[in-house]
Amino acid sequence: MSPEGLLPKGSKFTSITGDGMKIGVIGTGIVGRSHAAKLALLGHEVVMGTRNVETTLGVHERDMMGNPPLKEWLQGHPMVKLESFHEAALHGELIINATRGEHTLEALRNSGERNLEGKVIIDISNPLDFSEGALPSLLVANTDSLGEEIQRAFPNAKVVKTLNTINARLQVDPDALMSGDHDVFLSGNDAGAKQRVTEILRSYGWKNVVDLGDISTARGAEMMLPMWVRLMGVLQTPLFNFKIVR
Amino acid sequence: MSPEGLLPKGSKFTSITGDGMKIGVIGTGIVGRSHAAKLALLGHEVVMGTRNVETTLGVHERDMMGNPPLKEWLQGHPMVKLESFHEAALHGELIINATRGEHTLEALRNSGERNLEGKVIIDISNPLDFSEGALPSLLVANTDSLGEEIQRAFPNAKVVKTLNTINARLQVDPDALMSGDHDVFLSGNDAGAKQRVTEILRSYGWKNVVDLGDISTARGAEMMLPMWVRLMGVLQTPLFNFKIVR
Repeated sequence: MSPEGLLPKGSKFTSITGDGMKIGVIGTGIVGRSHAAKLALLGHEVVMGTRNVETTLGVHERDMMGNPPLKEWLQGHPMVKLESFHEAALHGELIINATRGEHTLEALRNSGERNLEGKVIIDISNPLDFSEGALPSLLVANTDSLGEEIQRAFPNAKVVKTLNTINARLQVDPDALMSGDHDVFLSGNDAGAKQRVTEILRSYGWKNVVDLGDISTARGAEMMLPMWVRLMGVLQTPLFNFKIVR
Repeated sequence: MSPEGLLPKGSKFTSITGDGMKIGVIGTGIVGRSHAAKLALLGHEVVMGTRNVETTLGVHERDMMGNPPLKEWLQGHPMVKLESFHEAALHGELIINATRGEHTLEALRNSGERNLEGKVIIDISNPLDFSEGALPSLLVANTDSLGEEIQRAFPNAKVVKTLNTINARLQVDPDALMSGDHDVFLSGNDAGAKQRVTEILRSYGWKNVVDLGDISTARGAEMMLPMWVRLMGVLQTPLFNFKIVR
């Protein structure tokens, strides 16, 4: 797909030289890369954060999912910079947590509590536990959630849980499926933060943004994952999503 | 709605004098009543089971949800009989578990293990825990499910988890929403049992029946409930469902 093809019609950010935001993306996996590429294309200044820049750039093999090493990916996305967690969080007016759930709290601590203070954190992570067999269970569920854990750990940040029920490619390109006629959920305590995140989601092409309520509603969104992984097995593709029919 | 309005087009069971099955419905709440009424209309011989027939018939007030007392309901549904759990299970070639999750295992034990042996149990229950605040959590989740607990407790029964992600009215009348263009999930270890349950679902009008796999996949279906209860709050109606878009 051409970069232009990634831009939804009516996008708020249509120029790569437009007045974008400074965004720090914590995590360099497929989720972090998808958002970094999309946000740079939409005109934002994106810095991706990793635990150790040298180590990350020293990887020369594709990962288990077949994704190219980050060094190669960065060559194809020259507008995205790679820095430490700390530098990426310092850079961002808005932070995206795209780490694996098991590493999230540590990665955000390494980003520096001061660098997160007062900022919106878009939390896309899922607390998946792969330690027991083929299908993951959740590390935290039912009476708590990773979204709530992050909010408790960083009380001065504004955590908005979203997009965790959706494949990385579809997260940033909802139109690729049924012209975007499917739903994304939103949980968070701060109305203004949810409004800003909704604007970013709309710039990605999302039409149906369902505000579930405060951050405790992240329990509902995270507990969709056991269904999601089973559906991926049944459908033999990760390119699906839930639509609320009413 | 007229009783005729409940019959989907092309239903396999269109005559109330047709060659239906003997079905035992365990539980007399709105879920049990919805299925008992629909199944009787479809030509099946339905016996509803309750813990204590006299006590149940002695109730003269509407319940918390505004449903009429069972005695009144039975007068409007003369083809449905009320018996003990034991008699209802003995009667049924096929059993429907329509009890509240917290009471399910006890109700099925009271139904008599021998009366369940070799039979298909359609399990619609959800292990909701209302003890902590307004929104329920789950009594069992993540690494186990109520569907699995039932299957372990009655290893000679064939448990099929289904319909638990859907409001009682829509369970038996999917066409009431978007001409039935939304999904119902199915979990169970026995392929033949799932086939029989699929036929019943189709006789209700269900078009999209998604077989998730063995009974452990009930974890996925039951863990949808935290999202379901929050969506009901957001949408201000229980008349919605999930559709998988791909």
